[in-house]
Amino acid sequence: MYVIGECINGMFKKVNKAIEARDKAVIQELARQQVAAGADALDLNVGTASGDATEIMSWLVETVSEVTDAALSIDSPKWAVQQQVVPKVPGKAIINSCKADDDQLDKYMSLAVDNDASLIALTIDRNGVPSDTDKRVELGAQIVTKAAEKAMPIENVLIDPIILPVNAAPAQPRHVVGALQQLQLLSDPAPMLVLGLSNVSQNCNHRKLINRTYVVMAMTAGMNAVILDPLDTDLMNALTTTELLQEKAIYCDSFLDAQRMRSNTT
Amino acid sequence: MYVIGECINGMFKKVNKAIEARDKAVIQELARQQVAAGADALDLNVGTASGDATEIMSWLVETVSEVTDAALSIDSPKWAVQQQVVPKVPGKAIINSCKADDDQLDKYMSLAVDNDASLIALTIDRNGVPSDTDKRVELGAQIVTKAAEKAMPIENVLIDPIILPVNAAPAQPRHVVGALQQLQLLSDPAPMLVLGLSNVSQNCNHRKLINRTYVVMAMTAGMNAVILDPLDTDLMNALTTTELLQEKAIYCDSFLDAQRMRSNTT
Repeated sequence: MYVIGECINGMFKKVNKAIEARDKAVIQELARQQVAAGADALDLNVGTASGDATEIMSWLVETVSEVTDAALSIDSPKWAVQQQVVPKVPGKAIINSCKADDDQLDKYMSLAVDNDASLIALTIDRNGVPSDTDKRVELGAQIVTKAAEKAMPIENVLIDPIILPVNAAPAQPRHVVGALQQLQLLSDPAPMLVLGLSNVSQNCNHRKLINRTYVVMAMTAGMNAVILDPLDTDLMNALTTTELLQEKAIYCDSFLDAQRMRSNTT
Repeated sequence: MYVIGECINGMFKKVNKAIEARDKAVIQELARQQVAAGADALDLNVGTASGDATEIMSWLVETVSEVTDAALSIDSPKWAVQQQVVPKVPGKAIINSCKADDDQLDKYMSLAVDNDASLIALTIDRNGVPSDTDKRVELGAQIVTKAAEKAMPIENVLIDPIILPVNAAPAQPRHVVGALQQLQLLSDPAPMLVLGLSNVSQNCNHRKLINRTYVVMAMTAGMNAVILDPLDTDLMNALTTTELLQEKAIYCDSFLDAQRMRSNTT
């Protein structure tokens, strides 16, 4: 599993405050904690911070890069931010995200190829988020086809079939499970499959329980990358145990700790 | 999900003692607790209790039937026990279990048909537990074919693809997931698919974590019946939340409690 830590997001009060004050220590501590908890990459999102989004994102990249070599996910809907910040990421960059629209894919994949970056491509088109499995797979196929056209390495393509909150859209969790099962058959090797996990439980009770249950379901269906809170220990334990039961790790009595150590040494 | 509670088993010290003393109160309390926790059926196993297995099993059936209408799973490898006890079960009986061997299937399915009982048929033949997915599916097909021959209602057929401990047999959990995915395609309507869950974590650390992770994986793959400990609240919460995310239940803020109430009123 490729784990992308979600904690450095200006939507969170503490992060917002740190951004406004340009307080590196708070951001760097969050970076260190997430990597120590098993994150392979860190998502960076300026949220509602006031000021120039490009400048703030650049500051986040610089701040986080001082304390970790982890890949950085540039989480912004603004093309200008992606275009200016992605080339400045010292290690691996992940462009997060673009839609499955021909023009957007063309532009974003060029930027990805030029910078050997990964790209999270959402199965969303002009009509919004699909309401069923088939449309998600159809848009996934468009993404894979475009990547081949652009000679983009398939391991840099992350398809996100978009999960919606179970309270508002009760059928969507199972449609996404169905989509994950089919999306992995689109090419060989398959594209990476990713979800922004916490969306499944938005405005629900028992959020953490819903998150850690759905991460197991999605992994069983084929998800191999995920944006989540790596500081949620029960969630990370569910993920690690699923890897064990998928034979992606071998059992030892301390398998929970062993997995975490692996993340910290790679 | 069809939940079969595993707690009335003579392998457990407390149950063994109650059986030896013919102490109905202990057994009846375990029956009540499991039904209250969401069990649809109760497994009965005499374990290592001394004396005549048929007599003890009959006493268990009588004892439990005094306090619940739940289905009773007669868990014994002895044909004589099944033959004598199954006809005496006042409500629904589940014969647990037989192997996928032509002679055994013939005999056990006749007993099931004569008593409108369900039958748990294991994907085991003379060569033991299969080491891969395909052999499990092949034996499952034999079971389904035999059920058709015997005019046994498919909803009374529970196929158990046999889970082994992840520490000793690390590839088996994923082979069983693969088998569940395929077994549900054997007929329409499909046979029920069941596992004795706790075997996956035998002699492992973090047993409860492994159990509640694997129950989600197996349900995602198609398991719709399970033998487990319904008194493990975290496990039952994982199961209930999976049903929610499969749209087998609808979200409400008290969905964990609502599910339990449903079990108690049906």
